[in-house]
Amino acid sequence: MAMGKNALNWQVVAREGEARAGLLQTRRALVETPVFMPVGTAGTVKGMRFESLESPELDARIILGNTYHLWLRPGAEVIRACGGLHRFTSWERALLTDSGGFQVWSLGALRKLREEGVEFRSHVDGSARFLSPEVSMEVQAALGSEIVMAFDECAPGEASHEEARVSLELTARWAARSRRRFDELQREAEGFGDAGRTPEHHPAVNGEQALFGIVQGAAHADLRRESLARTVEVGFDGYAIGGLSVGEEKPVMYDTIEMLAPLMPTDRPRYLMGVGTPEDLLEAVARGVDMFDCVLPTRNARTGQAFTARGKLNIKNARWTTDTRPLDSSCACSVCRRHSRAYLRHLYTTGEMLGGMLLTHHNLAFFLDTMRRVRQAIRSGDFTRFRREFLERYRSGVE
Amino acid sequence: MAMGKNALNWQVVAREGEARAGLLQTRRALVETPVFMPVGTAGTVKGMRFESLESPELDARIILGNTYHLWLRPGAEVIRACGGLHRFTSWERALLTDSGGFQVWSLGALRKLREEGVEFRSHVDGSARFLSPEVSMEVQAALGSEIVMAFDECAPGEASHEEARVSLELTARWAARSRRRFDELQREAEGFGDAGRTPEHHPAVNGEQALFGIVQGAAHADLRRESLARTVEVGFDGYAIGGLSVGEEKPVMYDTIEMLAPLMPTDRPRYLMGVGTPEDLLEAVARGVDMFDCVLPTRNARTGQAFTARGKLNIKNARWTTDTRPLDSSCACSVCRRHSRAYLRHLYTTGEMLGGMLLTHHNLAFFLDTMRRVRQAIRSGDFTRFRREFLERYRSGVE
Repeated sequence: MAMGKNALNWQVVAREGEARAGLLQTRRALVETPVFMPVGTAGTVKGMRFESLESPELDARIILGNTYHLWLRPGAEVIRACGGLHRFTSWERALLTDSGGFQVWSLGALRKLREEGVEFRSHVDGSARFLSPEVSMEVQAALGSEIVMAFDECAPGEASHEEARVSLELTARWAARSRRRFDELQREAEGFGDAGRTPEHHPAVNGEQALFGIVQGAAHADLRRESLARTVEVGFDGYAIGGLSVGEEKPVMYDTIEMLAPLMPTDRPRYLMGVGTPEDLLEAVARGVDMFDCVLPTRNARTGQAFTARGKLNIKNARWTTDTRPLDSSCACSVCRRHSRAYLRHLYTTGEMLGGMLLTHHNLAFFLDTMRRVRQAIRSGDFTRFRREFLERYRSGVE
Repeated sequence: MAMGKNALNWQVVAREGEARAGLLQTRRALVETPVFMPVGTAGTVKGMRFESLESPELDARIILGNTYHLWLRPGAEVIRACGGLHRFTSWERALLTDSGGFQVWSLGALRKLREEGVEFRSHVDGSARFLSPEVSMEVQAALGSEIVMAFDECAPGEASHEEARVSLELTARWAARSRRRFDELQREAEGFGDAGRTPEHHPAVNGEQALFGIVQGAAHADLRRESLARTVEVGFDGYAIGGLSVGEEKPVMYDTIEMLAPLMPTDRPRYLMGVGTPEDLLEAVARGVDMFDCVLPTRNARTGQAFTARGKLNIKNARWTTDTRPLDSSCACSVCRRHSRAYLRHLYTTGEMLGGMLLTHHNLAFFLDTMRRVRQAIRSGDFTRFRREFLERYRSGVE
């Protein structure tokens, strides 16, 4: 393993049952876990200024970037020329980039899967593209994220045992290829230091990235265990659970996490990809997961859905027309301190940008604050009670 | 005249030629003039959080609200029920509302002009509507703005003498009707105090508004003078120049202002409606105008145009693809301190909300900062030189 010096350091500081509170030290930010990572698809958390993400109110320490989107636009060369994704966007805290594989499956057209990688057509301009473990590692090296994800294949949630096995085998071979190309890139970039100081045209903007492997296997327990064993065999700085929240039933997801997480290396962070609702976060933390990302708080904000301590609130509802109360009376965010449901409904129904901006801000505040309270609860040995009361209230319904 | 007690107080603090620097004291904010008022069409300056408008960086003291838009959505009743436009939006600084007339002409369908008012169909849902001086005053009373505009008719810039005269006569009669209904509403609301403390269902949310009259007459000097005389005869707290920047040539606009402004009452603020470019602002200030509003900085931001000290910059241009410089190296705004042209171009070309948000912020910062420098120049007797140097640089072109 050729991980950069001190690229990543993670320590458990408290446990309660399977739930863990930890400290993830990255080159640029100290991240307390369990952590929710806002999704910054194309180099921006949609509708959010970076100043707000950095403000004490939200205090996001790590956000996601989508390799697929950034690779297509503006392209790896542009971002490399601008000194990597941190410099390009001005975000100086931690970044995790995904491998691009998931978006190829969900957005790309005319996909053709081969041993070597995936051929597909860009959803932006229809151009022919090819993504492989090597290409993904090279693009992520140009992005310069703190955490790089291995290139995997994600079988559908309802995949048969045979389908899931084929997918798992491919993912295992791709994991090894990801590891190899990643290590080469890191070695070449060693000593170049931080973003932007590498020689021009060098593929990597720094030599201090960490690499996470991804466990697949759909809803088949034996395949999940096998995938985990083979991923650990390759060896990574952290381990992700992929292929959940992709159409399967909730109990299947929870059961899979409950079976799998305790088997994962205890000294590495565990990352549940693309999950989930506030309930999902709490259930997964209780089962031993440390990291999450999901578009729910940001995407749903743009369709008028707010998350509150008493559950979801649809801002389009006519019952809020003259309601001068905030979205969530127990929320201390700048949106709830200042704006009424009536005003937010007006913004939404008139299609004003500010509507999406304010709901996004509130939803992220709610998710990040919930995780802050989760960490606090684990540290004070109070997580079991916190989880019960939070869920009870969350299911009680908005007044 | 039944203007509310201390509804508005304006004083000249410095003059240079026809240019005036003044202090406009409203119930909620002290506004230094010459002032540029950002346009908050439907109760929001598009893409801007109020916190940013209030920040020392922008420090907008007064913004506009559009009566037409707010009347159609969410409706005067909704805003009155929420305590007026200040409370509805959470903006506690000064507000100026227009009369709605201009938008009826530019947005409404199937307009029918009568002595009584204008019949038209809403551009939102096609419903039949009727706007008159009385209705406009009632809606603006429900909004509770500091400055209310009289309901006028705006002839096109190229209107013939005869057309402009007919329009002027109607505007004069509507001015008197606006004044009358406004005074009634103010008297009824007297003693109710600030927004939200008036009895339920009372038409006005407060009794401390000021009313501005509007001078029309297209490009005909004699009609402009006549319109001014008849407007002053009715008597208003401030005087606006309407019907400019509606298709006429620039020299016609500047000549009209140069002829008209010095004839306007010297002890009342002069407001040039819907103008304009940075050049227009400086030329009009030099001719004696104190107040401006325009959608240019906000609307053009959303189509990728930035205003800089060296003129306009089209962020879509491919030459910025890897340009790591800010929009304007002489600008101290939070966008220029942090983001590159390359990043802003990427946001724009991928259709990300943040692109419009950041360009809007920068453009408003540029307009508001320019006006700050204009005021400073007038106060220090340096405006002539400032104007010459500003315009020279503005025309030099972006590098």
